This record gives sequence, C-alpha cells and structure tokens, in this order.
Amino acid sequence: MGTDKDFIKQITKRSEDFSRWYTDVIKRAELADYSPMKGMMVIRPYGFEVWELIQSNLDRMFKDTGHKNAYFPLFIPESFLKKEAEHVEGFAPEVAWVSVGGEEELEERLAVRPTSEAIICSMYSKWIKSWRDLPVLINQWANVVRWEKVTRPFLRTTEFLWQEGHTVHETAEECEEETLKILNIYKTFAEDYLAIPVISGLKSDAEKFAGAVSTYAIEALMPDGKALQAGTSHNLGQNFSRAFNIRFENREQKLEYGWQTSWGVSTRLVGALIMVHGDDSGLIIPPKVAPLQAVIVPISRGNWKETVLPEAEKLFSTLKNGGIRVYLDDRDTFTPGWKFSEWEMRGVPVRVEIGPKDIEKGQAVLVNRINREKSFVNIEDIVEELSSLFKKIQSDLFNNALKFREENTSINSTLEELVATIEKQRGFIRSGWCGSEKCEAIVKEKAAATIRVIDKKKSAGLDKCLVCGKEAEKSVIFAKSY
Amino acid sequence: MGTDKDFIKQITKRSEDFSRWYTDVIKRAELADYSPMKGMMVIRPYGFEVWELIQSNLDRMFKDTGHKNAYFPLFIPESFLKKEAEHVEGFAPEVAWVSVGGEEELEERLAVRPTSEAIICSMYSKWIKSWRDLPVLINQWANVVRWEKVTRPFLRTTEFLWQEGHTVHETAEECEEETLKILNIYKTFAEDYLAIPVISGLKSDAEKFAGAVSTYAIEALMPDGKALQAGTSHNLGQNFSRAFNIRFENREQKLEYGWQTSWGVSTRLVGALIMVHGDDSGLIIPPKVAPLQAVIVPISRGNWKETVLPEAEKLFSTLKNGGIRVYLDDRDTFTPGWKFSEWEMRGVPVRVEIGPKDIEKGQAVLVNRINREKSFVNIEDIVEELSSLFKKIQSDLFNNALKFREENTSINSTLEELVATIEKQRGFIRSGWCGSEKCEAIVKEKAAATIRVIDKKKSAGLDKCLVCGKEAEKSVIFAKSY
Repeated sequence: MGTDKDFIKQITKRSEDFSRWYTDVIKRAELADYSPMKGMMVIRPYGFEVWELIQSNLDRMFKDTGHKNAYFPLFIPESFLKKEAEHVEGFAPEVAWVSVGGEEELEERLAVRPTSEAIICSMYSKWIKSWRDLPVLINQWANVVRWEKVTRPFLRTTEFLWQEGHTVHETAEECEEETLKILNIYKTFAEDYLAIPVISGLKSDAEKFAGAVSTYAIEALMPDGKALQAGTSHNLGQNFSRAFNIRFENREQKLEYGWQTSWGVSTRLVGALIMVHGDDSGLIIPPKVAPLQAVIVPISRGNWKETVLPEAEKLFSTLKNGGIRVYLDDRDTFTPGWKFSEWEMRGVPVRVEIGPKDIEKGQAVLVNRINREKSFVNIEDIVEELSSLFKKIQSDLFNNALKFREENTSINSTLEELVATIEKQRGFIRSGWCGSEKCEAIVKEKAAATIRVIDKKKSAGLDKCLVCGKEAEKSVIFAKSY
Repeated sequence: MGTDKDFIKQITKRSEDFSRWYTDVIKRAELADYSPMKGMMVIRPYGFEVWELIQSNLDRMFKDTGHKNAYFPLFIPESFLKKEAEHVEGFAPEVAWVSVGGEEELEERLAVRPTSEAIICSMYSKWIKSWRDLPVLINQWANVVRWEKVTRPFLRTTEFLWQEGHTVHETAEECEEETLKILNIYKTFAEDYLAIPVISGLKSDAEKFAGAVSTYAIEALMPDGKALQAGTSHNLGQNFSRAFNIRFENREQKLEYGWQTSWGVSTRLVGALIMVHGDDSGLIIPPKVAPLQAVIVPISRGNWKETVLPEAEKLFSTLKNGGIRVYLDDRDTFTPGWKFSEWEMRGVPVRVEIGPKDIEKGQAVLVNRINREKSFVNIEDIVEELSSLFKKIQSDLFNNALKFREENTSINSTLEELVATIEKQRGFIRSGWCGSEKCEAIVKEKAAATIRVIDKKKSAGLDKCLVCGKEAEKSVIFAKSY
C-alpha cells in the first residue's frame, strides 16, 4: 500500500487527458510502477492479480483443447536467430544481447528471447521423427524482452510477460485449423472475460509476424479512437521447419517438413482492460478478472465498532464462503466517503455498504461501480444478488464498449474521406483495398493508419480500392494503432 | 512423445550408477532435455507438470499466510547490485551481463537477475514510508540466471525457475518470525507433498546467503549419501534496508530501517524428488505431485477393442470424474508388457489393469509402483480404493526415505571418524563444533564435507569440537553436498 497522501491526490480526468489518466490511474491504483530501468515496469500485487486471473482462465482454455505447458531457455544463440531470414530481420533491431557470462566473454553472444520460435524449433527438430509424434501442442508462460524506444506501462514495455504457443501438425489443413482455433479462444476470452469486443481477422503481409505465412489478430478499439492489437495467432507453414529441419516420416513413409503455428497474448491485455473500461473516477475492472469483486465499507458512525463492525464481519465471511473475492475495509483512519472514492478509483465493481439502519432492516446496500446505482438487498440473499449484479456489470461493460465501437466505426470509400475521419474522430474505418502494398503504404503515409485486419468478405459498396480506385479484392479495417 | 526406439532402450540401473541413472531417467521419461546452450535445460511437458503441481500447492500456502505475488524486472543495473557489499561479492562471479540493447551499447551494463534483492529493495524504498505500510509480504515466481561451471538438470542449471519471497517488517522479532514461518512451510511442503524428509536449521556464516544476517535451510539426504539444500529462508536484518535506504516512520514517529527477509525454492525440488524416490526401473513420483496418478492398461488379447476397451473407457471416465489424474493407454502398437515397463519408468504411482476375466468378475487390478503388489478391487469401489492406495504410497515413500536417512546418519566425535564415515557411506554426520570458521574449513579440506545445518540444541555426548577438541557451542550436521 502507498502512503495516505498518494490516495488523496486527484487523478487526471479521463475525459480531459486520456493518456495522462491512463498513467495516473496505473500508478495511483498500484497496478504497476516505473522501475529504475527505462521502459521496464514493476507489476505490483494489485495489477499482478489481474494477470493471474487472466493466466488461470486462459491456461484452462488451452489445456481443455489439449495443450500442455513447458519451459524453454531464456537465451538464444545468435546463429539460431539467424536461421529464418525474415525472422531475424524483424527481431534483431529489438534484441538485448548477453556477451559476458560468469566474468568471461562468450564465444557467441546470446539473445535474450524476444520470442522463442528459434530455440523451440531447434528442440522440435530433435523430438519429432514420425507422424505418430504429431501434433505437438506446447505452450509456455514466460518473460520476453524487446528493446522498445517508446514505452507505456502494460502496452509496450521492454520486458513483458506473455504466453507463447508453438505447435506442429501433420498437414497444412490441421495447421490452419489450429491457428483459427486459437484465434477463436482469444476472441472468446477477450469478450467473455475482459468484456472487450474485438474484431478478428487476417493481417496484411506488411503487418504480419516476421517469418509467418499468415498472421491473424484480434483488434480492440480504445476510447481515444486508436486500435490495440490484443493477440496474434500465426500460421508459420513450413518456414521454420525448413530453417530448423523439423521433418517427420508421414503416413506414406516419406519425410515431410512439419506444419507449424505460434500464438501469443501478453500483459498488454491488462492495459487494454484499463483503457476500455475506466472513467473519470478511475478504473472499472470486469468482475470476472477483478482481484476484488466487492468491498465492504461499514458506515462508521458512533460506536460502530461494537454495532456495525461485527455485522460487517459476518457479511465478509458469508461472501468469502460464497466464492466472492471480497475485502472488508475496517480501517478507522479513513471516513466512509474517502473509502468510497478510493475503491471506485481502484475499480472494484461493487461496493457493499452497511450501517446501523441497514442492520435494523436486515439489508445491505450494493453500489454499482459503473453508474453508482444503489440497490437494497436482503442480507440473506446477498450472495445471489451480488452474483447477478456481477453478471449485469460484466455484460454492461461489454455492451458499452461495443456501442462505442459501433459509433466509432466509419465506412470510407476514398482516401480523402479516411484522412478526414482520422482527423475528426479516428476509430475503425472500413474500406475497399486492391491488395497492393503500395496503396497500403500511401494510407499509412497520409493518415498514419494501418490495416488492422482484412475482412472475410467484401462489404457492400466497397468494391473499389480507396487509394487507386481499382477493383477491391478485399474490404479491410483501417485505424491508427498503439 | 519421443520415438518408439527411445523407450525400448534400457536406462542405467540406479543401483549400478546413480549419477547416470539420474540423467538417463530424466531424458527417457521426457522430464527435461539438454538445450543447445551449455548448462541450460528445456523442461518438457511431463517435467513441467510436476513443477506446476509444486507451484500451485506452494502458492496456495503462501497466499494462505497473507503473501501476494508481483513481478519485478529481469535486469538489474550494475550499480544497484553493488550497493550491498557482501551481496555483490557473492553473486558478481556468476552474473550474465547485457551490454547491448536494440543495437546500441548501453551506458551501464545490466545484470540478468541472479536473485532480485537489489531491484526489489530499490522499489521498496519508494513504497514504504510508515509503519502502516508494513508488513510488505510479496513473492514472485520467476526465472533467474547464474553462470554455473558444472551443471546437472534440475539440480544446478544456468537458468532456473523459482519463487523468491521478499518481505519487510516493523521489528526484528517479526522478521525472525517470518523467516521461521517460511522455513516451516518449506519443511511441511517437502515432507507432505514431495514425501522427502528434511532437516531444517540455521546455516553457519560460511554457508549463509550473501548479504543475510542469518540463513535457514531445509536439507534432504540423497540416496548417494550427499545432502541437497532444498530451500532457504534468510533473515536479512537491516543489511539491505540500509544499503537501499528503506526507512519507515515507526509508531514513535521516528525514522527506522525496515527489517527484511527473503526466501526461495526452485526447480531443484524436481531433481530432489527424482533422486529420492526412483529405483532400477525408473521414476517413482509421489501421488500428490504426479502428473499422472494412475494409468489404465487394457489387456489387449483377441477382440479387445470390442470387449475390453469400452470397459476401460468407462473406467477412465469414472476415475477422471473422481478427480484422479489418469491416462488410458489404448495404443495398439504396443503390448501390455511394454506399456507396463514404460509407465513404471515414468513413475506413475498406480497401474490399473483390466482384462476379459476382470470384466467378468466386475473387478480391476491395481498395481503399486513401489513393490508391484497387486490388489483386486471391485470396479464400483475403485475411486475410494485408488485414493487410499495413493495415501499409502505417499506415506510409504516418505517412510522409506526417512528410514534411509536414519540408517545413514552417523554420530562422530572426531575428525578421523568423520573422514572414515565420508569415505565409507557418506550420509549425515552429527558432530560437536566449537563455532570457529577455522575448524569448519579444516573439515571441508579433509573430508569435502560442510555444515548443512546447526542443530537447535546440543546432542548428548557431543560436547567437544570434533576438530580442536575445545568446548562445542553447538552440535551440527556435516555432509558432502550437491
């Protein structure tokens, strides 16, 4: 816990300065702090609990679909990173290099992993011999390092925590199926747990992962109108299996290169949920991933320690036994009003108030963090009442975000329109695109917007490329992005 | 899964060559594999599941005692590592250094954390202002790197996974209390979950953590007569709080340096359980931390796929629904006998056999991995029967290890006796010690044995130092160690 003074300080209003609000709220709510190393953050217990809830739920989804966890080394020899040409080109500029170990200069310098394809593929080439060894469905939870020039807590940090799945399959079809299965898990997780609506789809070649045949992503719209890439699933085809010689004897007794995927989400998801759901008073954390789903604030008038506190303690036990993540704020150094602001700032979805009058009536007051709506509930029904209020808050948060996205999705058929939209409100912009990297680059140059995903089907009325006017092969979503 | 050939190969007999048996069984059971970087291992899914079970159970014990998880950066500036004099002296020779990030030479090189006191203390000095902020009870699960010259999978690797707790307290008494509370959690966990009896106690100054006031450890005896330090809990006193300026206003409104602890266990615990419980046929994994507690092998004679397999599948569902970690080995490319050997090698505590005759009788056969004892149980009672067999195996493993330790604990009152014991059978050796580093060093020189822990009370008959013959302040346990 920080000092009292930190809490009393106001955070910047979200409606006034979104970017400052974001860093203020992270610091004041003790989600994270800056470390002495530029671009590296410390994830504090309150922020880490959000990550633990993300981890445990995603981990279960991975295991339910047959994946197992493993752990591969932090360091990758430079020569391994160079084996896949596009891969090294994409990552080399961001690598931190170890050149001294145990007081001796190393013969070959070691990359601190920016991602683990190179080291994992070198092991797979030893382990995989036959189609009977496939599929290999391995995931790892790990830290990775990418030397970033501009950083922001959770969104882009030099070191971050993530999971990276690495699978190998017998056929191109199974490989594509896995890529999409994971994309779908990411979408489901973002929407059902983080209450963040996402658009999923293919990336253009310019935006895909270094070394992949194709990259799929989930993209969310932030309140400042910028897109955030929240997870990626790559079909690596045989690019890495050729570079690392991962071959298996297929069912026809012929040697064949394995078909691979890789996929990941990171602590960036915590940044996404902070941005999407907060308000001027601070954070709002969706109940499914909230470290505290409810906080009990006893109304501390008169001899409250004898009268109210024992009832609040009973309530605490009831909620805890009911499986609710709850905290009883029984500190006597703060007023109830101060506590209300503090827990609102920390984004606890429901505040439970209990005072002498409530006790007389056998009730408690539930306060919804989104709109401060109060409901008076019978103490005996409180676990059920809270559970249904959590459900409501969870779905209201999702619906609010979805409404915002819909209101901020434009359809533009020319570059001029798109430039105007970006200047006015940003948001997602649906347009026709001929498929050429040249036209894509022109949009980036003129509007600093990139293709976030390619739509599965063409939208009606978007049959021309917004730049060159030629026939549009595809309709795409443009946006400025984090 | 490896190729078929790997499994058929014999592992070295444990009774013939313990050290080769250890590395053989790790490789063949697919617990871990060597990576291309010297001294760094890959933890494969089967080994990682053991670690996940260790993690989840320990994590719950930490949380039940009020600790929370957080995450601190991987890199530590060299100047921070140097702030505590003994600390840097102890760790500098083992550090891997990053000197290039993002293609640029860094102004100050960064240590890849060998342990995180330095970075965590620098944050604590920002966070802690008042006694109201205490205690701080934070743990982190992380990877650390120590450049080791001689490595062995799980026991000593250049990178390893661990947890490191870092706490700050108001008083010296609370600090010591925390140090011992954690030591006790480690002892309980090692004995109740890993079925490894441990001796816990204080380290001598020569063996304590670099920067600590005192170090406590749990020590286990391995089958080759060497001791393994399996966990440490350090009372740091005010050494780090002075070096990093962690000061708080105490209840008398005076500034005071915080009282700190740190403590950790690592993937070394996996190595310990492999060594303690295996036999000539391979691993034996205690049921509480076994990725698979039972494996069902259908007896595949005649038209078994029509007759036996459906019953085996029913059995599988029953066990799975009963909360048992179970696998049904229904492969038709292997004989039952081959499968028996394979799962014995992998250390699954109970094999469940089911064949045509068993089905007629409504029974299944449970085979105890320790002694291959068979029991014939009614299918309807199988969940209860298995659960009680798991309990028996768990406690038999502990008792066997305890018996071994007792048989290999000697009492020696002179250096000559100790040298003879070390030459003959090694083991734990209880002796009197005057408390001088000089006598301790002589034992190390003559017998390559070190003080593993200092006993709380003097043992009868050990009132003289085994080296100098002066009055023994303490009785201690000597051993050769990993």
